[in-house]
Amino acid sequence: MSRIVYVNGNFLPEEQASVSIFDRGYVFGDGVYEVATVLDGKLVDSLRHKWRLENSLQQIGIPMPLSWTQIEEMERELVRLNNIDQGLVYFQVTRGQADRHFHYEGLNLTPTLTAFTQEMEVDPDPRAETGVSVASCPDIRWHRRDIKSIALLGQVIAKQTAKEAGAYEAVMLEDGYVTEGASSSIFMINERSQLLVRPGGGTDILPGLTRLAMLELAEKNQIEIVERRFSLEELIDSKEAFLTSATTFIMPITTVDGVHIRDGKPGPITLKLRRLLISKARDNLN
Amino acid sequence: MSRIVYVNGNFLPEEQASVSIFDRGYVFGDGVYEVATVLDGKLVDSLRHKWRLENSLQQIGIPMPLSWTQIEEMERELVRLNNIDQGLVYFQVTRGQADRHFHYEGLNLTPTLTAFTQEMEVDPDPRAETGVSVASCPDIRWHRRDIKSIALLGQVIAKQTAKEAGAYEAVMLEDGYVTEGASSSIFMINERSQLLVRPGGGTDILPGLTRLAMLELAEKNQIEIVERRFSLEELIDSKEAFLTSATTFIMPITTVDGVHIRDGKPGPITLKLRRLLISKARDNLN
Repeated sequence: MSRIVYVNGNFLPEEQASVSIFDRGYVFGDGVYEVATVLDGKLVDSLRHKWRLENSLQQIGIPMPLSWTQIEEMERELVRLNNIDQGLVYFQVTRGQADRHFHYEGLNLTPTLTAFTQEMEVDPDPRAETGVSVASCPDIRWHRRDIKSIALLGQVIAKQTAKEAGAYEAVMLEDGYVTEGASSSIFMINERSQLLVRPGGGTDILPGLTRLAMLELAEKNQIEIVERRFSLEELIDSKEAFLTSATTFIMPITTVDGVHIRDGKPGPITLKLRRLLISKARDNLN
Repeated sequence: MSRIVYVNGNFLPEEQASVSIFDRGYVFGDGVYEVATVLDGKLVDSLRHKWRLENSLQQIGIPMPLSWTQIEEMERELVRLNNIDQGLVYFQVTRGQADRHFHYEGLNLTPTLTAFTQEMEVDPDPRAETGVSVASCPDIRWHRRDIKSIALLGQVIAKQTAKEAGAYEAVMLEDGYVTEGASSSIFMINERSQLLVRPGGGTDILPGLTRLAMLELAEKNQIEIVERRFSLEELIDSKEAFLTSATTFIMPITTVDGVHIRDGKPGPITLKLRRLLISKARDNLN
């Protein structure tokens, strides 16, 4: 059965969902996106995704196409129409449609908002029981990674490289240090049971919302957080490691470039944090 | 009157020209493009654009959607249908349409080819008589600039910044050196009448086709070419400076960040090279 998707105010069968070839999202990657997780038919961390969307849009001078409430209503309607119990709502905003010129000053464009759902197993997720493998690659992305841009060819290449190496996710490296996963944040726990994570707030990584939820959770559970860069070697030598992303919450990393972390099994702290984070998400569904 | 544009084998009025919201060009910027200049109703440097398209596509693992000859036939038909005497044919190839997953292995996708024309004054171009101003900005782009990707948000930001500064083009800087313009290559002529240009062949700049044509022309005219990086200060202190791009050929740069180069008028070598390059292009139209 065909999904119902959303394009600029209309709910349509996916086969009919299109945008102009002049949409600046199509010719320039001139837009941003969000992925909201659906659990028990409801939205996880819904408000924060609108907050980050607005922030990304502000960074590149695109107005919000709808209010936070209207976007949430649209998401809920998509979840309802497609009868999604577990999965995600993806939505993206582009600068709109115009004759092709790089600049956008004075063009008075109307942003394009498109959205669709994907069904997937969120919890339980069988991958969480075995853990996942990651493969390293250079971080070749642009220098405004704080903007959740749809110009994602660098991530496409990273993910494809990982896939070809038989890995679930790519871990990107810059100047010898881990930046983040192609579509996730990377955490490690060291011998002293400190939780290491690359500092946020700059332009070198995305302000991951699950990363943020994870840090809040760690703080609440008296886990010492150390915000500093770490190398691939440190990741391999870690006591435990995991990635965070909207739809996977916390996913244990058990293998890096074909090398097991410790016994190659998900770590106990990781699994505990995963349970706690999903439980907290379930308590705060929208 | 509405243009006729091209979408996957069909010539359509532009209002009807659309792609799926699931096209990977739209959700990932997963595609590449070319801009071919039209002069006297014919194509400039036509073969080389197909060569570079194929090269860009190979780099990211997308098959050619049509043969070189078929693409050229499509371009010619667009020029004919839209009665273009001077302007450009833009065409882009994306990986095709699929449910959203970063990797593309095993998806067996059919590339999407879209194309359209734009009318513009190519020669004479009144801007060549006065020269243009450029504004500097940091080069925040990704590290595979040799791929002519549609993931162009960095260039959009650069061009917009330049536009807001009242400049025609952005000159992007990395480690204190000029990389290239947002949609052009940058050249300067020094006191010794050497032509300076940043070395190509790597991943830090695009292999500009007009840049290449320019180098061939300089060689033929016994102008000494020095392939080395130069700084913004050197550009401002240059004897003459210009940019090259498909549709502008050679465009004199007369002002950098509000500062005139010499007397702020197009240099004689620049104007001579412009005449020669356009003349050569006219002799080799397709």
